[in-house]
Amino acid sequence: MKVINSIKDMRAWSKAQRRQDKIIGFVPTMGFLHEGHLSLIRKAKEHSDLTVISIFVNPAQFAPGEDLDQYPRDFERDEKLCAQEDVNVIFYPSNDNMYLDKHKTYVITEELSKKLCGKSRSTHFRGVTTIVAKLFNIVNPHIAVFGQKDAQQAVIIQRMVTDLNFDIQIIISPIIREADGLAMSSRNKYLNENERKQAAVLYRSLQSAKTEFEKDNRSLLEIKDKITAVIKNEPASRIDYVEIVDAQTLGSPDPGEGDMLIALAVFFGKTRLIDNIIVPGKGEEWSTGVLE
Amino acid sequence: MKVINSIKDMRAWSKAQRRQDKIIGFVPTMGFLHEGHLSLIRKAKEHSDLTVISIFVNPAQFAPGEDLDQYPRDFERDEKLCAQEDVNVIFYPSNDNMYLDKHKTYVITEELSKKLCGKSRSTHFRGVTTIVAKLFNIVNPHIAVFGQKDAQQAVIIQRMVTDLNFDIQIIISPIIREADGLAMSSRNKYLNENERKQAAVLYRSLQSAKTEFEKDNRSLLEIKDKITAVIKNEPASRIDYVEIVDAQTLGSPDPGEGDMLIALAVFFGKTRLIDNIIVPGKGEEWSTGVLE
Repeated sequence: MKVINSIKDMRAWSKAQRRQDKIIGFVPTMGFLHEGHLSLIRKAKEHSDLTVISIFVNPAQFAPGEDLDQYPRDFERDEKLCAQEDVNVIFYPSNDNMYLDKHKTYVITEELSKKLCGKSRSTHFRGVTTIVAKLFNIVNPHIAVFGQKDAQQAVIIQRMVTDLNFDIQIIISPIIREADGLAMSSRNKYLNENERKQAAVLYRSLQSAKTEFEKDNRSLLEIKDKITAVIKNEPASRIDYVEIVDAQTLGSPDPGEGDMLIALAVFFGKTRLIDNIIVPGKGEEWSTGVLE
Repeated sequence: MKVINSIKDMRAWSKAQRRQDKIIGFVPTMGFLHEGHLSLIRKAKEHSDLTVISIFVNPAQFAPGEDLDQYPRDFERDEKLCAQEDVNVIFYPSNDNMYLDKHKTYVITEELSKKLCGKSRSTHFRGVTTIVAKLFNIVNPHIAVFGQKDAQQAVIIQRMVTDLNFDIQIIISPIIREADGLAMSSRNKYLNENERKQAAVLYRSLQSAKTEFEKDNRSLLEIKDKITAVIKNEPASRIDYVEIVDAQTLGSPDPGEGDMLIALAVFFGKTRLIDNIIVPGKGEEWSTGVLE
């Protein structure tokens, strides 16, 4: 396994591999790897000859006052995990390499980036699309794998790849959960014991919504209220949002058309966690109520 | 010479050429080719094995009320000119191919796109950067050539390529002028005989500014006034802007540092023309006055 720091060396490696017709799979991460990341690596390996993972805590996707400085980092541990997973290259650039002083260019996805998490994190997704476009141009992979955990990010990246004609196949990999259902996240590390225990409510609340759908409850407003009520049972919780949207447009669900995304963001203490499930579309009318 | 309409075929052609280690030079245009474009093609040919020109009138860089519909088009003539110049491929996509209904993604270059022409054309440059990013991802060239005629575009494209790590060398090619000094432009076709005659004042005004610099006049405000006075002698002229800015940042020129760009946009009748010259930086202080 190689660790590559410079953009020039990363490009040269990819060029050499492409020249030998190797299919390059890519997993962009911010490091502090957990089972969720490892599942993305395994998915990339299934679809490619060689796997590159990038580890870069991207300042452009943090707003002032967010957790850029505290974001957990442990490169040595990450390196060991990648070696165990037979990763071929860790691309591990410095911040100075990635953002020049004169940086002015951003990739934006208009209203897609303003919904859900974008309401409280207004510059987050332009940070994500910008770093992903940069990494795509540097690593030049055939395939890139992202997690369904960041559902809005997954939609936005797929939109960007289509709109800007990146010649890269995007694969979205399922959420990996702890035994009690909590979605794996580097930020779970911030939770104290009590918060950690209570945070399992997120998955339970999504499961209760799924049960309602399965019972043929068609009032999205009622289902949203149900999720909210389940979460509020846990005293450390503070809801940022609970929304039910069209899984592609992230807008109001088109009654009876396409899949729906139930997405939520909830604080436990100072830690903001996100989770989601996809509910398959039905050939029937939904009562959408006032969801936004 | 091949004419390629589909994105898929364009990608396949580039892949096949790259596999044979051919250097691909690229000239993106909106068609209605003139000597200026041909000079870009010749420049591309100097630096590459194979030359691709794209012809696409890009709706995203026109605002409502601008001249998208009237913009001159003559594909047959363009095709002949390209054949004469030994172009290898004309990439000539349809609008439906290039912008899907669900298009949401734009590349922006923040304040660079708000200066000069961006003041009156607020969405123009995001249209330019977006289509160029798309074309770069489809054509996948080693080299791309742009004209100095569109000075702000040249700065913005170079910034985008650096910031988003496109692995493409950008070459900026000099302005090509008519015998009386008018910079070649597809929009010159809009001018009536009288306007066409008067439009030559733009180059004369820039030359008068150059003379002032050579005489060591260091008051940018005085030089700007001089340009304005020369242009106003022509009754059909209406000035949009005359500005003297740092040639890299497009901001206020740093006294004594770097090259300066003298750029202007002037209407003759309904036709808006642009022109510019670069004045080399001097190791002395400039009196900048109030230029913005």
